[in-house]
Amino acid sequence: MKPASRTKLLRVAGLPAVKALFATAPQRVERLFFDQRLKSQVGDFCAELARARKSYRMVESDELERVAGAVMHGGVVAWAQPKPVPMLDPAKAAGWARDGKPLLLLDGIGNPHNLGAIVRTAAFLGLPRIVLSDHPAQAMPSDASYRVAEGGFEYVELYRSAGFVKTLQQLRRSYRVIGTAAENGKPVEELRRADRPLALVLGNEEHGSPQSTLKACDAIVTIAGSGFVQSLNVAASAAILLHALAKP
Amino acid sequence: MKPASRTKLLRVAGLPAVKALFATAPQRVERLFFDQRLKSQVGDFCAELARARKSYRMVESDELERVAGAVMHGGVVAWAQPKPVPMLDPAKAAGWARDGKPLLLLDGIGNPHNLGAIVRTAAFLGLPRIVLSDHPAQAMPSDASYRVAEGGFEYVELYRSAGFVKTLQQLRRSYRVIGTAAENGKPVEELRRADRPLALVLGNEEHGSPQSTLKACDAIVTIAGSGFVQSLNVAASAAILLHALAKP
Repeated sequence: MKPASRTKLLRVAGLPAVKALFATAPQRVERLFFDQRLKSQVGDFCAELARARKSYRMVESDELERVAGAVMHGGVVAWAQPKPVPMLDPAKAAGWARDGKPLLLLDGIGNPHNLGAIVRTAAFLGLPRIVLSDHPAQAMPSDASYRVAEGGFEYVELYRSAGFVKTLQQLRRSYRVIGTAAENGKPVEELRRADRPLALVLGNEEHGSPQSTLKACDAIVTIAGSGFVQSLNVAASAAILLHALAKP
Repeated sequence: MKPASRTKLLRVAGLPAVKALFATAPQRVERLFFDQRLKSQVGDFCAELARARKSYRMVESDELERVAGAVMHGGVVAWAQPKPVPMLDPAKAAGWARDGKPLLLLDGIGNPHNLGAIVRTAAFLGLPRIVLSDHPAQAMPSDASYRVAEGGFEYVELYRSAGFVKTLQQLRRSYRVIGTAAENGKPVEELRRADRPLALVLGNEEHGSPQSTLKACDAIVTIAGSGFVQSLNVAASAAILLHALAKP
């Protein structure tokens, strides 16, 4: 019982997220709640919890809302140990680049739904790692972001960076670091230049990346728009850019 | 006063959406509400309403929530006549193809936030028209979708289709109609084949497009994934595919 009593548990809601949790880290689940409708789909999870002497329970709809802390729970909620978000080790990050896969860095994504949406897209496209900057607005994983990510958090490793500008400078030795801005950047085709694996930085929803971040990048990219609507949602930008990155 | 009394007014919340409304269709606004914080930014709108003998009012935060019907109102709310969503005229649609721009068709996008997110992305990328199918789950424009679209609805024309399969068959004379599916479709590069302008169909969040829709398309496209997360959110898919379409 010791970890459960020390850390605030995460409330992971919805079948895709709960399935991903049991598939990758069942030991993190402390309790499971579900409604009548989901009963037939959680049998294996209950058996696994029984073996670990942990509790599971079918509950009424209103109690499920309460244990989920949200109306949108999809009929099943796991209370789970949060997945640790370790500090980024720059030496280790240099090693990552060897697998050739792109790296995503979030620098002030404040809306938990945007964080969840970006993690879902990153996991779908097979991006293995995301670094969260020390921007004061940056959201950390939460019940809300887990709900939106539909299991994505279990397939992406998250790291925190303390001095973000320094992190970018260190990463540039092994990655080509691409910042993003709402205007005056190079076209998305810039992502095809690949002497090194790419590291993509997405900035705050309202203010974008700080100047200090942009200055520390190898290049800045802008998604060209019609001019009718001021900006693209950051999760939509992430989808477009990560898809461009993930392509061979 | 006749239109106001006959139709349910739309509640358009947030400065980007309200700005887009005044920029494109100020005559649709019936009333405006805002809080102290937004006062300095809505002066021109108030002047315009005064000339039209319509009312505007600065209100307290809790009243703004009430008139917005939502907590997330961004400090300003317009009550407006909804923009009509006319029936699609196939003969007219054949003429649209002449401008070479892609067409987007939504076939069962049920979540108003997804509808709003897709409209925002479409407007940003300069897509001029969206057709909504008669799929029972298809969301129509609403307060919630307007809030998410951040003005996008004012820059995209929406149409409704009564017999969707027949509509697709008619559109195929002038467009190359591309369906989407979670698996077994052709890669996104298929969107580069362009003997005719492209029409892209996005299906329901949970079940995708009905078989009858898929059969009526020229080709089916699938966004390749890692297999870790079951599916991409439909608004993320829309961003990736519309960006691929919108590129020269």
